[in-house]
Amino acid sequence: MERHFEQELAELKERLLYMGSLAEQAVHRSVQAVLEGDEPLARRVIGEESALNEMQIEIDERVMRLLALRQLMAADLRFVLAVTRINADLERIGDQAVNIAEAALRLMRHPRVKPYVDLPRMSELTEGMVRDSLTAVVQLDVELARNVLHRDDQVDRLRDQMFRALLTYMMEDSSYVFPSFELILVAKNLERIGDHATNIAEDVIYIVAGRDVRHPALDRR
Amino acid sequence: MERHFEQELAELKERLLYMGSLAEQAVHRSVQAVLEGDEPLARRVIGEESALNEMQIEIDERVMRLLALRQLMAADLRFVLAVTRINADLERIGDQAVNIAEAALRLMRHPRVKPYVDLPRMSELTEGMVRDSLTAVVQLDVELARNVLHRDDQVDRLRDQMFRALLTYMMEDSSYVFPSFELILVAKNLERIGDHATNIAEDVIYIVAGRDVRHPALDRR
Repeated sequence: MERHFEQELAELKERLLYMGSLAEQAVHRSVQAVLEGDEPLARRVIGEESALNEMQIEIDERVMRLLALRQLMAADLRFVLAVTRINADLERIGDQAVNIAEAALRLMRHPRVKPYVDLPRMSELTEGMVRDSLTAVVQLDVELARNVLHRDDQVDRLRDQMFRALLTYMMEDSSYVFPSFELILVAKNLERIGDHATNIAEDVIYIVAGRDVRHPALDRR
Repeated sequence: MERHFEQELAELKERLLYMGSLAEQAVHRSVQAVLEGDEPLARRVIGEESALNEMQIEIDERVMRLLALRQLMAADLRFVLAVTRINADLERIGDQAVNIAEAALRLMRHPRVKPYVDLPRMSELTEGMVRDSLTAVVQLDVELARNVLHRDDQVDRLRDQMFRALLTYMMEDSSYVFPSFELILVAKNLERIGDHATNIAEDVIYIVAGRDVRHPALDRR
């Protein structure tokens, strides 16, 4: 029974990592589709979303099995409860990648605007956050999780920088209003992906610390 | 023991409803602050966010206690797993209300733009979705949950309508670019609140149906 449990737990972690890699890949491809105006790539991201949906169902079933196997205590219990939230976060990262891919398709119909410098940086940053937050979950690495939390501020700064550039374009030339608006939505999607990675990182700290550090100000009391 | 468990479960549901009412109130007030340029109200929403954070911690502790009380089976297990996700959704609705309140503060420094017709409708709609999704959780009312899912399309339509109006203002007069942009962000925040309510409604169907209907296309196989 014990061996069975450990094996189920190891498999759960492996599947979670795999789901994370699918989510990260979807984000990367969706942004590539925006940057290169690559319609087939955008359609591919949209078409492959169902893989993440299937993974979410599979992982929740694994969590149910683990909880049915035996009465879990403290750290293990926190782990599986966190997994059901992390699982939902990963699935929603996939949704955001689809939104970006859809924006890529709409952008192809408009004149090209310039702030394509911040976009790949913001994308790279959020992809790294997704990857590292998942590694932190599997290795229960609190330091790495905290590092992910710090990077969310960088994402917000890049987003603000992108917004400023795009609003300036809009004011200078009204023909830029539509494409700039689409890029604002893409930046919002990337910000939201960063938020999901942040949620995952906070869950790592919650699992390990055994206290709730999702809200530091409360925790200090 | 049985009685104890039932009582803990009843209390959990009651606290979840209460947390939902706080989240709904925060959304309502934040949008009022935008509509009426009410600075004290905006600051109040920002100041009261910590109440939702505290509730999230309390509810997750209740879930841990319930799981420790006894080995749960099928429906009860799905319920408590869903609660830990729903709890996270409610806390994030509070975060979105804070974002709206912050936009309200920034909007006070700009000329007033008009599309304040769609905004209260969109807000009312999402507040109702939050309220009804929680009622559906507590009463395990699948019909009500499905009704919430349908309303998300209305939110998306209102959002698109608002976007069109705001982009038109931006193109006509560049001094409207900044305030219109802020209202775009507010619409995005309300859309995200609707998404959270949708997540909650999907979880109700998951709890009751016992199969995963969060992804209908997969479920039909």
